[in-house]
Amino acid sequence: VVGVDLGGSHVYAAVIDAKGVILAQADADIDRARPPEQILRGDVAVTVRAAIVAAESRSGASPGSIAVKGVGMGLPGNIDRVRGICRFSPNFHWRDVAVAAPLQEELGQPVFLLNDVRSHTLGERHFGAGRGHQSFAMLAIGTGIGGGLVIGGRLIEGAHSAGGELGHITVDPLGPRCGCGNDGCVEAVASGPAIVRAAQASIAAGRGGALLAQAGGDPGAITPAQVASAAEAGDAEALAIFTRAGEAIGIAVAAVMTTVDPEVVLIGGGVGQAGELLLRPIREEAARRCRMVPAGATPVIPAALGEKAGLVGAAALALESLGLLDPVLV
Amino acid sequence: VVGVDLGGSHVYAAVIDAKGVILAQADADIDRARPPEQILRGDVAVTVRAAIVAAESRSGASPGSIAVKGVGMGLPGNIDRVRGICRFSPNFHWRDVAVAAPLQEELGQPVFLLNDVRSHTLGERHFGAGRGHQSFAMLAIGTGIGGGLVIGGRLIEGAHSAGGELGHITVDPLGPRCGCGNDGCVEAVASGPAIVRAAQASIAAGRGGALLAQAGGDPGAITPAQVASAAEAGDAEALAIFTRAGEAIGIAVAAVMTTVDPEVVLIGGGVGQAGELLLRPIREEAARRCRMVPAGATPVIPAALGEKAGLVGAAALALESLGLLDPVLV
Repeated sequence: VVGVDLGGSHVYAAVIDAKGVILAQADADIDRARPPEQILRGDVAVTVRAAIVAAESRSGASPGSIAVKGVGMGLPGNIDRVRGICRFSPNFHWRDVAVAAPLQEELGQPVFLLNDVRSHTLGERHFGAGRGHQSFAMLAIGTGIGGGLVIGGRLIEGAHSAGGELGHITVDPLGPRCGCGNDGCVEAVASGPAIVRAAQASIAAGRGGALLAQAGGDPGAITPAQVASAAEAGDAEALAIFTRAGEAIGIAVAAVMTTVDPEVVLIGGGVGQAGELLLRPIREEAARRCRMVPAGATPVIPAALGEKAGLVGAAALALESLGLLDPVLV
Repeated sequence: VVGVDLGGSHVYAAVIDAKGVILAQADADIDRARPPEQILRGDVAVTVRAAIVAAESRSGASPGSIAVKGVGMGLPGNIDRVRGICRFSPNFHWRDVAVAAPLQEELGQPVFLLNDVRSHTLGERHFGAGRGHQSFAMLAIGTGIGGGLVIGGRLIEGAHSAGGELGHITVDPLGPRCGCGNDGCVEAVASGPAIVRAAQASIAAGRGGALLAQAGGDPGAITPAQVASAAEAGDAEALAIFTRAGEAIGIAVAAVMTTVDPEVVLIGGGVGQAGELLLRPIREEAARRCRMVPAGATPVIPAALGEKAGLVGAAALALESLGLLDPVLV
C-alpha cells in the first residue's frame, strides 16, 4: 500500500509492505492556499506516483510491476473516515471537503482517510509500542498536540469523529487561547510553539542565556529541540520549561486515565523526542492527579514509530481497511 | 433478581423483574465501622431476605415461592467486578476486601459486584436514558461525583477498574483538595458538599440572606436542595453557586467529549435533580471548552432512573451477568 502524510506545507508518500516496512518514499512542498481538488489531484497524486516509481526503481522491478492495493492518508483535522470527508481542518481552512473520492478517481486505487494522529495510533497498534495492548492512549506532541485512543481493541472514533482529540483537553481553565478557540487546552500550553514562547519569555526576562546561545543569538530562531538541548546540558530555565510542559501534559494524561483507564500511554511527536525530560514530569503529574489507578501502574512510555509514524500509520489504515491486518477499526 | 445499593451508612435492597421494575424493597442502617464480613453476612444479607419477603407478601405469593436468580450489588469505590473484590472504598476504608464470595455463601445465590455509579450506568443503558445509545457518559452528582462510560455498546471498566471515574477529572489544577488526594477534581469543586460550602461562604460574607432563610437560619443545616430552591426563587447568589458548579462539571464533560466523543451525556444523582439550574451551565461550558464537536451536537440531558438508580442499576448488573439482558459488559 501507499501511506500518505499530508500536512499544512508538505506531503510525504511511501510504499509500505504488509509488515509496515517502508520500501521507498517521495515528498513535495504544497501550497495549501490552492483549491483542495488541485492539491489532491495534483501534488498528492504526483507524490504517490513518485513513491511507487521510487519503489520500483529501488527494487529493480520494471515500471508498473509493483501492485499497490490501496492508499491510506492521514490528515490533520476532523475526518469522517467512513465518508472519506474532511469535516474541518484548521491547517487547510477546509470545511466538508471530499478528499478520498477525487484522489481515488485520480489514482484508480481505493483511498482511505483518517485524522493523522489517529492513523499514527493505528500504526503504533499494529507496528509500534501499542502492539499486544487491548487499550492504550497516544499523544503526539509537536506543532499541535494530537491524540488517539484504542479501547477494547478498537480505535475510538466517537459520535462526531472527535474521539481521541486529547490535545484539546482543558488543563488550565484560565490558560492561553488555543487555536481551537478554547482557553487552556494542553495543546495551547505544552505544544512546540508553547515551549518556544516560554523560552522566548525566559530570554526576554534575562534568564535565558543558555537558551539564547542554543539559538545562535536569535530568540526568533529558537526551536523545541534547542530548548531540550539546553535542558540536557543542565540549564535550569530550559529544564523548568520542559517540566511545566510535562506537568500540563500530565494533567491531560490523568484525565484520560480517569476516563478510560488504558493499559499504557504512548508519548510521540517531534517534541516527544525529548524523552525523559518530558516523560518524567508527565508521569509524576499523572500519578499526582489520578489517584484512581495505583501510582505507576499505567506505564507512560515513548511511542515507537518516530518520524515515520505518519506514513506507517497511514499504511496501517490502508492495510486494515483492505482486510490485510487484524481489525482495530470498528 | 435482587438489586442492592450499599452506601456508607445505609443499605437498600429491591426485588426487581427482568424489565427493571421494582416489585418490593427493604432497607437498613449499617455501621460501617464493623468488619466487612459482619456487614455483608449480617446487615446486607438480612436486607436482601427482607426485600424478598416483602415481594412475596406484596404479590400474595407463598413464602419461598419467589425464585430469585441472583443478586447484583453496587458499592462506591474501586471494584474488581470479575473477582468480586472491593479493591478500595474510601467510604468504608476497605482495601482488597472479598465482597461477592461471603455474600454468595450466605445467600446461596450468585452475587455480582460493581462500582455503584457504573451499575447506575448499566441501569440507564438497559432501562433509562441510555437506551438505544451505543455510547454515552454518565455523571452522578451527589455527595461525591461518580461516573460511568459506555462506548461501542460496552461499559468501559479499564485496566485497573478505574474507567469512568469522571468525578476525578481535574477541572481546576489549583483548586480545593479532593478526598482522593488530588487538587481540583470536579468532585471537590461541584459535588453536594462543595455547593454547601459555597453557600456557607456566601452567608459568612453577608450575601446569603435568601440561602440562610432556606436553611431556617442555621448555616450548618443548609442542603444542596435548599440552594437550588433559593436559585429557583431568583436569588442571584444561589444561582451563581449552581452556575459555577455547572461550569466546573462542564469542563469535565468537555474532557470526556474530547476524549471519547459520546453520543449523549447523562447527568444524574441527587444534586443532578436541580435540572436546568445545573444543565444549562454544563452545556454552555462544555460547548465553550470542546470545539471538536459542533456546539450542542452532544445532548447533555438528565439521567432517567432518579432515586431508584442504585437499585435498578444493581439489578441490571445481575440480569446481565445472568445472561438475561443483551450484554453491555465485555
